Amino acid sequence: MSETIGFIGTGMMGEPMARNLLRAGYAVKVYNRTRDKARALASDGASLVQTPAEVAAPNGIVITMLANDQAVEETAFGADGFGPALRGGIHVSMSTIAPATAERLAAKHREHGGRYVAAPVFGRPDAAAAKKLWICTSGERTFKERVRPVLDALGQGIIDFGEKPGAANVIKLSGNYLILAATQAMAEAFTLAEKNGIARTAVADFFGKTLFACPIYQAYGKFVAEENYDPPRFRLALGLKDISLVLDTAKASEVPMPVASLLQQRMLSAVAKGRGHLDWSAIALLVSEDAGLE
Amino acid sequence: MSETIGFIGTGMMGEPMARNLLRAGYAVKVYNRTRDKARALASDGASLVQTPAEVAAPNGIVITMLANDQAVEETAFGADGFGPALRGGIHVSMSTIAPATAERLAAKHREHGGRYVAAPVFGRPDAAAAKKLWICTSGERTFKERVRPVLDALGQGIIDFGEKPGAANVIKLSGNYLILAATQAMAEAFTLAEKNGIARTAVADFFGKTLFACPIYQAYGKFVAEENYDPPRFRLALGLKDISLVLDTAKASEVPMPVASLLQQRMLSAVAKGRGHLDWSAIALLVSEDAGLE
Amino acid sequence: MSETIGFIGTGMMGEPMARNLLRAGYAVKVYNRTRDKARALASDGASLVQTPAEVAAPNGIVITMLANDQAVEETAFGADGFGPALRGGIHVSMSTIAPATAERLAAKHREHGGRYVAAPVFGRPDAAAAKKLWICTSGERTFKERVRPVLDALGQGIIDFGEKPGAANVIKLSGNYLILAATQAMAEAFTLAEKNGIARTAVADFFGKTLFACPIYQAYGKFVAEENYDPPRFRLALGLKDISLVLDTAKASEVPMPVASLLQQRMLSAVAKGRGHLDWSAIALLVSEDAGLE
Amino acid sequence: MSETIGFIGTGMMGEPMARNLLRAGYAVKVYNRTRDKARALASDGASLVQTPAEVAAPNGIVITMLANDQAVEETAFGADGFGPALRGGIHVSMSTIAPATAERLAAKHREHGGRYVAAPVFGRPDAAAAKKLWICTSGERTFKERVRPVLDALGQGIIDFGEKPGAANVIKLSGNYLILAATQAMAEAFTLAEKNGIARTAVADFFGKTLFACPIYQAYGKFVAEENYDPPRFRLALGLKDISLVLDTAKASEVPMPVASLLQQRMLSAVAKGRGHLDWSAIALLVSEDAGLE
Repeated sequence: MSETIGFIGTGMMGEPMARNLLRAGYAVKVYNRTRDKARALASDGASLVQTPAEVAAPNGIVITMLANDQAVEETAFGADGFGPALRGGIHVSMSTIAPATAERLAAKHREHGGRYVAAPVFGRPDAAAAKKLWICTSGERTFKERVRPVLDALGQGIIDFGEKPGAANVIKLSGNYLILAATQAMAEAFTLAEKNGIARTAVADFFGKTLFACPIYQAYGKFVAEENYDPPRFRLALGLKDISLVLDTAKASEVPMPVASLLQQRMLSAVAKGRGHLDWSAIALLVSEDAGLE
Repeated sequence: MSETIGFIGTGMMGEPMARNLLRAGYAVKVYNRTRDKARALASDGASLVQTPAEVAAPNGIVITMLANDQAVEETAFGADGFGPALRGGIHVSMSTIAPATAERLAAKHREHGGRYVAAPVFGRPDAAAAKKLWICTSGERTFKERVRPVLDALGQGIIDFGEKPGAANVIKLSGNYLILAATQAMAEAFTLAEKNGIARTAVADFFGKTLFACPIYQAYGKFVAEENYDPPRFRLALGLKDISLVLDTAKASEVPMPVASLLQQRMLSAVAKGRGHLDWSAIALLVSEDAGLE
Repeated sequence: MSETIGFIGTGMMGEPMARNLLRAGYAVKVYNRTRDKARALASDGASLVQTPAEVAAPNGIVITMLANDQAVEETAFGADGFGPALRGGIHVSMSTIAPATAERLAAKHREHGGRYVAAPVFGRPDAAAAKKLWICTSGERTFKERVRPVLDALGQGIIDFGEKPGAANVIKLSGNYLILAATQAMAEAFTLAEKNGIARTAVADFFGKTLFACPIYQAYGKFVAEENYDPPRFRLALGLKDISLVLDTAKASEVPMPVASLLQQRMLSAVAKGRGHLDWSAIALLVSEDAGLE
Repeated sequence: MSETIGFIGTGMMGEPMARNLLRAGYAVKVYNRTRDKARALASDGASLVQTPAEVAAPNGIVITMLANDQAVEETAFGADGFGPALRGGIHVSMSTIAPATAERLAAKHREHGGRYVAAPVFGRPDAAAAKKLWICTSGERTFKERVRPVLDALGQGIIDFGEKPGAANVIKLSGNYLILAATQAMAEAFTLAEKNGIARTAVADFFGKTLFACPIYQAYGKFVAEENYDPPRFRLALGLKDISLVLDTAKASEVPMPVASLLQQRMLSAVAKGRGHLDWSAIALLVSEDAGLE
């Protein structure tokens, strides 16, 4: 008989991830705040439940893939939270949240007899569907070992960052920051080229094939060169949340991050200008505007 | 009988480049301000001359690989400059200089009956030695075609950016800016990780194998993770020169570059603190210091 | 018989303020977490109590002058908080706190039948002693009128910013930001002068007598010119708290503040370097260091 | 018989200054590139000449009040320059130029037997008309003494910064930077207030009467609060030139100026957006735009 996994959060990322679990032969109990968004999974074999608590079983595994820290904390320990129902089970937290939230959740689970494994992921929705996510883990070794087969069903590689609950989240936040920094730098370089009579795409193409021949520069280079920001792969408003988590973490650990801080202010401007629903690479629009381009 | 190439500037980059020309069967006439630095090339078969003018022959090719704009302009059109001696020949300018300087040189050569091809390169000294440079070109088509075999002897690929003399320089400067931006962003991320108990090298390793699996992040990630800044691969003082050329060009073309500008100020600080002789990736030291680390 | 005022928080600012109330003829009930720090006031006639709740009387006035938002919220509505005891009375909140905290406190007081008046102040401890504070108010008109005589005993002027509970705090935070921005700008200018052979004090003196002949430039210009940061007039660690509140408020209201954000990162660096106990004008030290001085 | 002063540059500042010299009883010989702009002065008694050289007389005094470094250098030592005609006379250079240009001019004058006194001014055109300029001087003592009566006819105070020809220019540039930094900081603070429901003018008014009760905050606070940028008092394009001179000087003396550098990029954006003709306080428009306001 197949093991049952609880899965909370079936948005752009969570839905294809839950489907991969079904394909790998797991039984999946799904909770999503907006129930309608989980219907497609139900027709693929998932069972839909009414509250977060219902996805959990003693000694079971519950995965969360939600939009922010508050949503994770509420589904775990709010009204009808699944945390108290885990008894011996493991919360595999795959959302992008603050390391401090991870530490707090780990402590709460311990109080209730459950366990916490951080397993945030890198990859856009198409990578989630293709099982091409990179998964960073941290937490207690025994529990990471137990959830490993489940994670193997979701990604192309698992990289471990030790026992501290928040460590994997530091890496995830750092990665999002590196992506955003690369995006802004490309936006500045492409705009410089554009105003000097060189096509943005020619620049993206050159660097993506040579010095920066890697997934992020190739993908984001193309987005920024072609100014392709809609529909979003990852919403700018969530990107602002993430870069703000980076800076909160940096403040708590007394690490000035001048470029990160500059980027946060520019993401904030993008939101203020009504671009929160675009792809986060639309941070590049401000660079063009500041240069007097449309 | 083999064609003769004039070569001016046999520093860390120029020396292995000139050697590759010799290996490719060209006769090479070398001028270097500090004559002693060119001796090794002489024993490899190059002929050493006393003035820039002597490297040029009518209809010939002269390559410059020098530290800054002023050096290129002086060797071309200063006292004993080679420019007037080119008569029908081509100046292949491979140094990192301002697009505006390229335009000025191109115009001057035209006045004197010579031609100008911009051909700045990407790659550190070891890449120069291994013929692994990436060469960006711009200038008149006919002349780019004529110098192509010579460039083929120096790099792994030639990418063209059109007829404007300064275009290739815009790309070269943009590339150096992108490298510096990536370096600073990694320095911020690694320092955040370090102060959260995660090894810098673990972070560099992860990103270099996944999202940023490309030469620049792998090389500079390692430098910054291991704080390996001495001996320099590319001197920080020259890096400050380059990022300043980026900003000069951006100012002339009315393109605000907020991250580039922030990096310039930090490179300036590194020079003020006596680090101009280190590798330019030592911009990362300021990030550690600002976080209260040694 | 004189009216009784409750006073919570007798630090560098609170102590001279409470003393001025005594001098103006008010009876003053004092609570301070560290009781010893309030002894001097006791010998001046104040009565010391053991809990925040004891300073309050129905329909009375309670002033808070504390280090941060959390301290204000705890003394008002934590264990033994004075809030529930106000019944019809007014909480005059004079600390530098977030506008959002002010709104929250105002709502809570309303629930408990009390009222909230924001009255943050500008001025260093010597100004507090000399009744030279500037007091910004916001809140319901009736209640502001009732507390006006009390505020008159503390400052040289009261400026009102309307009925929104948090408005005065926006002004207070803005003011602290303007001071910090002026300090950093002077630090940059003085360091430029210094490295060009001009005495820092000559520059401070000139601007303080001409274009910037006003209290802030004169005082902070002198601090920064003479590098006089110890003992602190206002601790740098508190300054970091304030500039962070500015940015939190700006983020909530979607206002990018690029200079404020840059300053926050530099204050964070000062704290990381162990300067949190110095005067906040010590933000200037980083400017000198970045220029290779010291 | 009255002394004759040569005066070059009768723009918004130069015209009222030259008029004050006439009023003080000096004979004034005027050269302006656009001759028509000097007609009004002619009807006030000035004599108009056709070339810069004609304003000079041996042992005489020539004042320049021009838009940029290049204009000063050309009128002094270009074709028909007045420099060689000074023979023993003094060039009083009152424009805002780079300290390096001042040093270069001083050296050239010495070669030709003339002298150079730096005397840049603070004040807008209305202050020039009202003899309310602040004048900073540097240069050789003897020559500063000789020109003092002339300067007394132009300003409300003369402040000396020693013998180095460029010192007064460092102060002038620093002052313009301080003004711009204050303007940007106010723009950020006022926009924060605005989005929190507080009138911009109320904030400007409060600070202008209390902490920042000085000319710059009062004037620029009003401009920025009322968004009054046209007609310009000082053109933004010239402001960009000045902040760029600040940064050039800072780079040459190895002084990182992070706020100045951020402001330069924002001024550049303002120019790119077609605002070069507005008052330089229009740097504030970008703050409003970045916050999503019109």
